[in-house]
Amino acid sequence: MPAKNRYNHGGMNQQQAILQTAIEAARAAGALALARRGHSLAVEQKGFRDFVTAADKEAQRLIIDLIGERFPDHGIIAEEEDDSLSAESDTVWIIDPIDGTSNYANDIPVFAVSIAVAHHKHPLIGVVYDPVHDQLFSAVAGEGSTVNGQPLQVNSKNGLGDAFLALDWSRGGSQRQTTLDILGVLAHEVRTVRAVGSAALAIVWIAAGRLDIYFNINLKLWDIAAAGLIVQEAGGQVGGFDGRLFDLRDAASWGVVANKPLYAQTVACLQPYTSAS
Amino acid sequence: MPAKNRYNHGGMNQQQAILQTAIEAARAAGALALARRGHSLAVEQKGFRDFVTAADKEAQRLIIDLIGERFPDHGIIAEEEDDSLSAESDTVWIIDPIDGTSNYANDIPVFAVSIAVAHHKHPLIGVVYDPVHDQLFSAVAGEGSTVNGQPLQVNSKNGLGDAFLALDWSRGGSQRQTTLDILGVLAHEVRTVRAVGSAALAIVWIAAGRLDIYFNINLKLWDIAAAGLIVQEAGGQVGGFDGRLFDLRDAASWGVVANKPLYAQTVACLQPYTSAS
Repeated sequence: MPAKNRYNHGGMNQQQAILQTAIEAARAAGALALARRGHSLAVEQKGFRDFVTAADKEAQRLIIDLIGERFPDHGIIAEEEDDSLSAESDTVWIIDPIDGTSNYANDIPVFAVSIAVAHHKHPLIGVVYDPVHDQLFSAVAGEGSTVNGQPLQVNSKNGLGDAFLALDWSRGGSQRQTTLDILGVLAHEVRTVRAVGSAALAIVWIAAGRLDIYFNINLKLWDIAAAGLIVQEAGGQVGGFDGRLFDLRDAASWGVVANKPLYAQTVACLQPYTSAS
Repeated sequence: MPAKNRYNHGGMNQQQAILQTAIEAARAAGALALARRGHSLAVEQKGFRDFVTAADKEAQRLIIDLIGERFPDHGIIAEEEDDSLSAESDTVWIIDPIDGTSNYANDIPVFAVSIAVAHHKHPLIGVVYDPVHDQLFSAVAGEGSTVNGQPLQVNSKNGLGDAFLALDWSRGGSQRQTTLDILGVLAHEVRTVRAVGSAALAIVWIAAGRLDIYFNINLKLWDIAAAGLIVQEAGGQVGGFDGRLFDLRDAASWGVVANKPLYAQTVACLQPYTSAS
């Protein structure tokens, strides 16, 4: 976890201005997504088993325009564009305009807007907005996280047998098999399993104590940047299957989210399998 | 599908009265569930990995009282009580007061009230109410199905590669392995996989064209009675892994739900595995 007030060369007012902009952008993008819902969505294929709607693109444009207007020197990484953390700017926004596009396009009410801000490649601010249920999850590094202003805290569960496991499926065949292999171990240990179709929402639901463990072997930067900070600030842990903790500079270091004991137990439970491969 | 107006010895007024009572009971139980949500739910374990809340019991009592008042000679089967289709009454109500109790108890906004009415062991009426999103799904045998009054129609997808597969997990270890084995085949074929945690809601979402295939090796009567009629009346098929179609008199005859081509393809895809066991 970065030190408190890492982003202090601009002063607290700058940090507050960034947070307020992130919240404003997330709410506006969420409202746009709701307004467009069910209006015979144009769905476009962007890759194998991967789709995007016109609403994703409009929501992303809205967010990018707001950032560009207020913080013209900040960098931006957005799902519908780029995959690498640009080193061009000290401060970089990481955006997924609609996390859970497949749900959204099929009128399943589980999707979210995800907006994170990193400073020198450390997470500074995370905002995840669930527009259907009007729940705004947010965090500032070192200052905790909240949902609609109420403090978030991960569950205190301390055994896999009590845990709700959530996962998302990768698209490629060999990644599906790896996901099945991991699930084949964990499904026997946990109380039950969910696949809700929005990584950001599943992770902030862990922050809220609603779910307990999440895994995804192909988690993208824009899936984890905001939700990862929110769950860390709620006492959770984000890391790899190898136990290495989340670091935005290291793409390999994420994939498992849980409270601290369940994170350790999950990694230990998978260790015989992950170390063999 | 039963013939139109099978329940005609009491006349249409009786059938309408039953439908209206089912809708009224589902809305009242849903409102109760919403009102109780988040009020430090008392959760009680009723079996291995199986839980019930005080709200389930209160909602069930409310539904049973309403039925008993209006139709004192009807039989009732309810999740929190009994598992067999009583032959004592010609007309039997089949109730799951909160389908998705685990979600409900954890503040995950995916659960539903399920109320079905069978006459001489044929489905007559099905009502599934999603109180969080205020969506009321209903069907009358032979008369189609609707959500909030709008006609429902399953998706026209005709290939597993386009399909959204949903499933629920059984509780026992060997059933979990069977579920994993089936998933191990289907996950490679479909576009993506969901486990939303409410069987009734997943099935009516197929009726609405939001999901495409559902499977559950341990589907209970109260999970399928209402949602099964709703999806059949929307053009979907409910049956077993062996291709036998849904029949309330035959507990083995359910477990897979989809539109007709996807039902056939799912059964065919699993045939090498199911016939070997």
